[in-house]
Amino acid sequence: MRVSVLFSGGKDSSLSALLMEPFFEIELVTCSFGLLPNGELVAKTAKELRFPHRVLYLEQEILEKAYDKIMNDGFPKSAINYIHEKAVETLASDPDVKLIADGTRRDDRVPVLSISQVRSIEDRLGIHYICPLKGYGKKTLSNLVELYLRIEEGPSESIQKADYETELREFIRQKHGEEKIKELFPAHIQSHVLSRKESA
Amino acid sequence: MRVSVLFSGGKDSSLSALLMEPFFEIELVTCSFGLLPNGELVAKTAKELRFPHRVLYLEQEILEKAYDKIMNDGFPKSAINYIHEKAVETLASDPDVKLIADGTRRDDRVPVLSISQVRSIEDRLGIHYICPLKGYGKKTLSNLVELYLRIEEGPSESIQKADYETELREFIRQKHGEEKIKELFPAHIQSHVLSRKESA
Repeated sequence: MRVSVLFSGGKDSSLSALLMEPFFEIELVTCSFGLLPNGELVAKTAKELRFPHRVLYLEQEILEKAYDKIMNDGFPKSAINYIHEKAVETLASDPDVKLIADGTRRDDRVPVLSISQVRSIEDRLGIHYICPLKGYGKKTLSNLVELYLRIEEGPSESIQKADYETELREFIRQKHGEEKIKELFPAHIQSHVLSRKESA
Repeated sequence: MRVSVLFSGGKDSSLSALLMEPFFEIELVTCSFGLLPNGELVAKTAKELRFPHRVLYLEQEILEKAYDKIMNDGFPKSAINYIHEKAVETLASDPDVKLIADGTRRDDRVPVLSISQVRSIEDRLGIHYICPLKGYGKKTLSNLVELYLRIEEGPSESIQKADYETELREFIRQKHGEEKIKELFPAHIQSHVLSRKESA
């Protein structure tokens, strides 16, 4: 069974792919609006992880609607969730894609699809959606990352990663400048995967 | 990392162990009130799966409280959930146990621990709890079972299995006879794992 794993180059989507590797044929898919070189950025990580990788370009309209949401809300939650939902839908509309996975963890709040969103996508688009990390808590995942991945961590503005937030930040930077980003996005630590550890 | 997997001999707990096998050291643990030879029954399945296996005896009081619940409710949900919670707690109180896993799936309703029950057990008892199948829907799990396990399926009264329901049914049979069981437990299909398929 081939599974398409939504891949940001971060530790969650990487670990998600590693956990499925013994049982599925893995393909990593990075979504991009083409605003930043997201695909190239994480292609190196995908290569280090030894998985095939491709970039899926999303409609500009999705980014614009997400922008409206974050400007309206004053915080990124629903905008990021919206991009994630549309990314899964876009990938699901590829007739060759039957299984889609991501790096959602038990304790994640964003981006998370609700169980009714998941069932709606599965029923409408004829795919099955997997969250391999969904049954794992933070501590167990940290231990697995420690065992299997070499990563670098740092504040979100300094780590090169291709998650939905990166391009949304860039879109806002282009329209409103740096200050607006600090206002809208809480500072948090991001991770970027360098490679597998040799145990993996 | 060694993980203790709550094991009934059914396809969910078996698949749960298989999915973790490449990353964890697996131990299967079957809970029993000693009312039926649950341990012996599934020891054979555990051996076929090539995992170490042991039986954990639970306090009789847990079965009695579960009995009170089902007699009071008229259906098994809260009684089964109660036994499951107490089984996890009993296993968690073993100082050698640090990680506990079970076969809970995305679409399961019983037995399921709520996220607050999970966090409470993790915090109080210093263990981490994993549900490897929690991010998988029914169809994907059926495909994995088909690929990796040889099973037999049938109505719950005819399939030899060591889940919480089996002994609760026996307890009620001893007190009230066969008819009462049919009244309290909806008829459903159970599975019993015979062995791995050679692909596994």
